[in-house]
Amino acid sequence: MGNVTIKMLAKQLNLSTAAISKALKDSHEISAATKQRVLNLANELNYTPNPYASSLRHRKSKTIAVVLPEVADSFFSLAINGIEAIAEEKGYHVLIYLTHESFLREQAILKDFQSGRVDGVLMSITAETATYQHIHALHSKNVPIVFFDRVCDEINTAVITTNDYESSYKATQHLIDAGCKKLCFLSISNSLSISNKRKQGFLKALADNQLVAQFSNEIICGNDSDSNYKLIKQMMQQKNRPNGIIASVEKLTTDVYLACKALKLKIPKDVKVVSFSNLSAATILNPSLTTITQPAFKMGKTAATALFKALEKKNVVLKNESQVIASELVVRESTKN
Amino acid sequence: MGNVTIKMLAKQLNLSTAAISKALKDSHEISAATKQRVLNLANELNYTPNPYASSLRHRKSKTIAVVLPEVADSFFSLAINGIEAIAEEKGYHVLIYLTHESFLREQAILKDFQSGRVDGVLMSITAETATYQHIHALHSKNVPIVFFDRVCDEINTAVITTNDYESSYKATQHLIDAGCKKLCFLSISNSLSISNKRKQGFLKALADNQLVAQFSNEIICGNDSDSNYKLIKQMMQQKNRPNGIIASVEKLTTDVYLACKALKLKIPKDVKVVSFSNLSAATILNPSLTTITQPAFKMGKTAATALFKALEKKNVVLKNESQVIASELVVRESTKN
Repeated sequence: MGNVTIKMLAKQLNLSTAAISKALKDSHEISAATKQRVLNLANELNYTPNPYASSLRHRKSKTIAVVLPEVADSFFSLAINGIEAIAEEKGYHVLIYLTHESFLREQAILKDFQSGRVDGVLMSITAETATYQHIHALHSKNVPIVFFDRVCDEINTAVITTNDYESSYKATQHLIDAGCKKLCFLSISNSLSISNKRKQGFLKALADNQLVAQFSNEIICGNDSDSNYKLIKQMMQQKNRPNGIIASVEKLTTDVYLACKALKLKIPKDVKVVSFSNLSAATILNPSLTTITQPAFKMGKTAATALFKALEKKNVVLKNESQVIASELVVRESTKN
Repeated sequence: MGNVTIKMLAKQLNLSTAAISKALKDSHEISAATKQRVLNLANELNYTPNPYASSLRHRKSKTIAVVLPEVADSFFSLAINGIEAIAEEKGYHVLIYLTHESFLREQAILKDFQSGRVDGVLMSITAETATYQHIHALHSKNVPIVFFDRVCDEINTAVITTNDYESSYKATQHLIDAGCKKLCFLSISNSLSISNKRKQGFLKALADNQLVAQFSNEIICGNDSDSNYKLIKQMMQQKNRPNGIIASVEKLTTDVYLACKALKLKIPKDVKVVSFSNLSAATILNPSLTTITQPAFKMGKTAATALFKALEKKNVVLKNESQVIASELVVRESTKN
């Protein structure tokens, strides 16, 4: 007689398929008597749930996804460690998906999740992502999503961030206190919320110190190290070159150092440099690098903890799990006065 | 009447379920007339295949897995980029699984793959992995596996490696030529094939130069940076401390530099250092680091290319796709004479 389905059970018991489904899930919406009738028939007919559908229903893929721009960045690799520390406790697998800063790829990955491949998603969006339809689409399928670092404020969920505005302000003030008057902010995106917050903190510190931009004081770098190097070198060849640089992401540090080296500009004498960075080698660079060190591991842990709350309990308001965890300005030789 | 199953079709047509299944897959084993009968009934009853089972049968997960010890290592993050370059061409998703050098975790991940979650696996084993039953088990389920970098020679498949023995020999000879007589090799494993090859190359170069170990000339480091730092510092405090160090993995570099700094030992004057490393910051370290630079991106691409051969064609002998791609010794200030 083939596989017994929920439809068959529903028909024989004169109930809706939804009621059968709820009864099998021991839902409080169904009376004890009805549950017993359903279970009796299910046992009698040797009903086995479709394994794939069951996996969807019972959230048994036991897998969460982490969607990231890249892993060649100490922030992300440390955040992954924080995420995996929690996932391991919970007995979940972690899948890492890389977008390589491609909006198209991010869309394709999220589309793939709609099939129920994962139970929940931790995400840091790409530098290109400026519309959020693909995220809304997944979110509306009741797949819990938690953002960390590069967040999307449009989705009603938890966002785990660091104090980007304040740290950037603090780093800029630190450069100004060290004597810099011509400051440059190296950005990687016009749309990313964190890039904008860091830029706003930078601009506010300039304004509070009555500093006026003497030349274009912001540069948007791309995803390609060679062209970033050229862009930075070009800027440093101008007469009005900056004597203080804030790199908004770790990977720009090497390009700044190499451009200065090529132009025989000494760090920190000719130009001081501070970078948002979790590079463990920051201390052994020539010169050692002043960093805004983000609480990467803790952010990953916190984001994962929020996600598991939603996976383990219904009716968790994820928005309330949002947290801002402070970064730290670690002063080293690259900003010495 | 519920979902129509292959069993129902088989019963009505008086055929075996295997025959129905083959007919639906347009197998040459089934006559055209029978296929037509099966298709007609399938259409009539609106038969839809179970999506999960179908995905397994038709290898339509369109997903490959990359199983790695960690991503906080430039070799692995570059190799991932190489893998994803190929996977993108082919329209496949790439899932990254991290073992964090844990043999138990590697076992759990490979077990999970047996359910058909991925079509193929690219893999670099953990420093702990010394038995291979879990890999054999997956391989015997006809899931193609290709190893890169940290390979397992016991499995009959493609292995993509670099010339670890030769590069290590060359780096050791370079240190000896620069005047080092007391050499130390920093290893991370006694079981890993690449660690052993690198160590053998080191020992052969010592022997060829009639150098005898004046003290324990090999140190096994662990997964924890703090204890590695202590171990290295301890060694460098001995009277008989080495004046030449080969670090067999990138992450040991920072610990070596910091230990030397703490002990006021100058690199390269007091001790010369060379590291297996793809760190882009190698050029801006203090002093810049001599590296054995592995062809990480190319190794990733080559490994993925081999895997897709197996995914796209039956009867590919993966073993024949094995390749050795040469590393390059890049001499910088840390080994200056």
